[in-house]
Amino acid sequence: MAELSRRRLLGGGAAVLGVAGIGAAGVGTGLGYAATREPEPTGGRTVAFHGVHQAGIDTEPQAFAAFVALDLRPGLDRRALVGIMKVWAEDGRRLAGGSPALGDTEPELALDPARLTVTVGFGPAVFDVAGLAAQRPEWLRPLPAFSIDRLEERWSGGDLLLQVCADDPVTVSHATRTLSKSVRSLATVRWTQRGFRNAVGTKPTGTTMRNLMGQVDGTVNPAAGSTDFDRQVWNPGTPAWLAGGTSLVLRRIRMELDTWDELDRPARELAVGRDLAAGAPLTGSRERDDPDFAATDVHGIPVIPPESHVARARPRNANEQFLRRGYNYDDPDGAGLLFAAYQADVDAQFVPVQQRLAEHDALNPWITPVGSAVFAVPPGFGPGGYPGDTLFEG
Amino acid sequence: MAELSRRRLLGGGAAVLGVAGIGAAGVGTGLGYAATREPEPTGGRTVAFHGVHQAGIDTEPQAFAAFVALDLRPGLDRRALVGIMKVWAEDGRRLAGGSPALGDTEPELALDPARLTVTVGFGPAVFDVAGLAAQRPEWLRPLPAFSIDRLEERWSGGDLLLQVCADDPVTVSHATRTLSKSVRSLATVRWTQRGFRNAVGTKPTGTTMRNLMGQVDGTVNPAAGSTDFDRQVWNPGTPAWLAGGTSLVLRRIRMELDTWDELDRPARELAVGRDLAAGAPLTGSRERDDPDFAATDVHGIPVIPPESHVARARPRNANEQFLRRGYNYDDPDGAGLLFAAYQADVDAQFVPVQQRLAEHDALNPWITPVGSAVFAVPPGFGPGGYPGDTLFEG
Ligand code: HEM
Ligand code: HEM
Repeated sequence: MAELSRRRLLGGGAAVLGVAGIGAAGVGTGLGYAATREPEPTGGRTVAFHGVHQAGIDTEPQAFAAFVALDLRPGLDRRALVGIMKVWAEDGRRLAGGSPALGDTEPELALDPARLTVTVGFGPAVFDVAGLAAQRPEWLRPLPAFSIDRLEERWSGGDLLLQVCADDPVTVSHATRTLSKSVRSLATVRWTQRGFRNAVGTKPTGTTMRNLMGQVDGTVNPAAGSTDFDRQVWNPGTPAWLAGGTSLVLRRIRMELDTWDELDRPARELAVGRDLAAGAPLTGSRERDDPDFAATDVHGIPVIPPESHVARARPRNANEQFLRRGYNYDDPDGAGLLFAAYQADVDAQFVPVQQRLAEHDALNPWITPVGSAVFAVPPGFGPGGYPGDTLFEG
Repeated sequence: MAELSRRRLLGGGAAVLGVAGIGAAGVGTGLGYAATREPEPTGGRTVAFHGVHQAGIDTEPQAFAAFVALDLRPGLDRRALVGIMKVWAEDGRRLAGGSPALGDTEPELALDPARLTVTVGFGPAVFDVAGLAAQRPEWLRPLPAFSIDRLEERWSGGDLLLQVCADDPVTVSHATRTLSKSVRSLATVRWTQRGFRNAVGTKPTGTTMRNLMGQVDGTVNPAAGSTDFDRQVWNPGTPAWLAGGTSLVLRRIRMELDTWDELDRPARELAVGRDLAAGAPLTGSRERDDPDFAATDVHGIPVIPPESHVARARPRNANEQFLRRGYNYDDPDGAGLLFAAYQADVDAQFVPVQQRLAEHDALNPWITPVGSAVFAVPPGFGPGGYPGDTLFEG
């Protein structure tokens, strides 16, 4: 009888059910792609761990990231710091290569590096603990307070940073835990922030990510390896130990999606200055078209509003540029962007732009910074080195 | 000078740097896979939404899941419930097919279904609100209290369940928000639990997942489409409206990884009764080998301890079987397993096993249930139907 009534109720969908009944779990190719043979597993892909720069910055962004801030336990000295760094150098190298860390308690979870990168950063306290206050970059301190900030302690600050990125979330989870656990006697986790982009393979390689407001996010960015990238991102050696390093500004920015959703599409596009479909500037039609900030409509009104996010964020001089390599987050406390900016000098490059956006940005009613942290990211190192070796052994 | 000291410090790694300097961000193929041409994007893959059963149960598990429990607002009636279900039927169909939901505020985030499934479940209150208390399956109530439970309200109970699974985390985030938002005037989100497995492509298709203890988890499971699966999972029609439906028991089980890590490998393997490398029973060498619970060593001691997890979990009769389709979680409040079991009858199939494990399971010192919820999962439906149509229109 139950059978009968199902059939009756489903009557309208007989054709559908003919298929679904035998293959409700089958994988269709809804967009008309042809079935392909199984590609090679991607878990084995690796990113070089050693180099002039730490990996994870000029690395094509992986699908998943965890940013972990740690605080140093009281009473440590430079030797203890170097100890932490040597552990991370050794275990980072192993994990990035698809080998278990030393004493890895879940070695099987280490076998798919999936382009794992481990990037280490220093908060302000590192320099005091190391007795090297004179070596602290001037810009290494909390950002100035901005009117838009609603910062929470639980997402802000930190003495050390681990940025762990990979194309597999199990890999990120395991590496994050392993690296923080191995230094537990010296440093405690202050906060962990996890983010994601599209899974590898969802979209063609090279597609710019979309954030959770639906916008194409990351279009205007220097290309890895270009002279623009090198100039914007890698510190030239001020202070000397930081040559080849950079800085990370991590802002946890909550999106006020409920009120954002009340806006219609044109209003949203005017707030950003780009369209939603392609991420094209309002004066163009393709994502990579150059915006024309001077263009006006028949009434003489600028096509890209001067108060739009991109008009306000646009650099006013060659200094005001940096790399954005952020991740979406969607947690019980809200959804938004783990905004991550990398630049040679925070004060010269990042702060003026953030200041201008804080003063006025048409997007501001719908984005709220709830966390903020700044780190110096030491240069890369070879097999004999470790993060910060140029500082501690300078 | 900074340049010089870098070179000095990196001396040992000159060969590495020769490569890394030009390609620190390059993708290696660490495990010796040959480079392949770009495969078709996987975002377009779809799973049939309509059918005899709801999708998301006999679907090959997707990489990401969100389980969302909602509570009905006070004063609702059957009509309101049917209203919610019709919205979910329409929007679920659209999203699963890669189309925006009705009035989708971020339509671009809907375009990669990535095997999206949306599965709806009913908590106990649905039947009271609908004036259909007599139709409530007997087993649809909180599980009996178990000695091992440390349940928290914030992960337990709920009037309605949305299970949203896809191979892309952006898709899951968007679908979860869209579906819960569209019924906001009638139901509020009680909790959201997000889980993950390996990303698609990391491992060869068909590889059994590993949980965050590093164990191969999910080996003994009925195969979708088999008679075992059909018998264990799909309700035969008790009550009649549930024919082709099932039940979901969702347990949030925290792993006590810090103490687990103190155990050596043999002790861990004895606790489970399977090895860590392959997930093979301690009496075998391959994952799919049948465990031999009668085998003893030279001293007459059972090779698979009778108190091990698999020995205790093994069914004592043909009833005590079900589908496990869980996900890892790694959140600020801890890491563990979103244990998800599907069975025709909770009391007959699931409870005896959980009861036996609660009484004794060598794994218990390292796993703590912190959340628990039970839902009836109505059968599938065709284009004219909706979740629970056999109940509400019975
Ligand atoms: C949740 C917060 C934010 C959202 C949703 C957002 C969104 C966007 C979008 C959609 C674009 C256009 C596409 C692109 O070039 O990437 C953009 C551009 C940009 N954003 Fe943001 N953004 C946010 C926060 C910030 C912050 C905090 C900064 C810096 C302080 C910033 C700096 C920039 C810059 C420099 C550009 C490129 C401007 C240009 O030269 O065209 N954004 N952002
Ligand atoms: C965090 C908690 C848990 C962990 C880490 C865990 C782990 C495992 C592992 C590693 C296996 C062996 C491989 C396999 O067949 O999947 C297994 C089997 C099994 N587990 Fe669990 N499990 C957990 C909770 C539970 C719970 C709560 C139940 C049911 C109440 C359960 C029921 C089963 C069953 C029925 C089997 C198959 C036993 C057989 O060989 O017949 N597990 N589990």
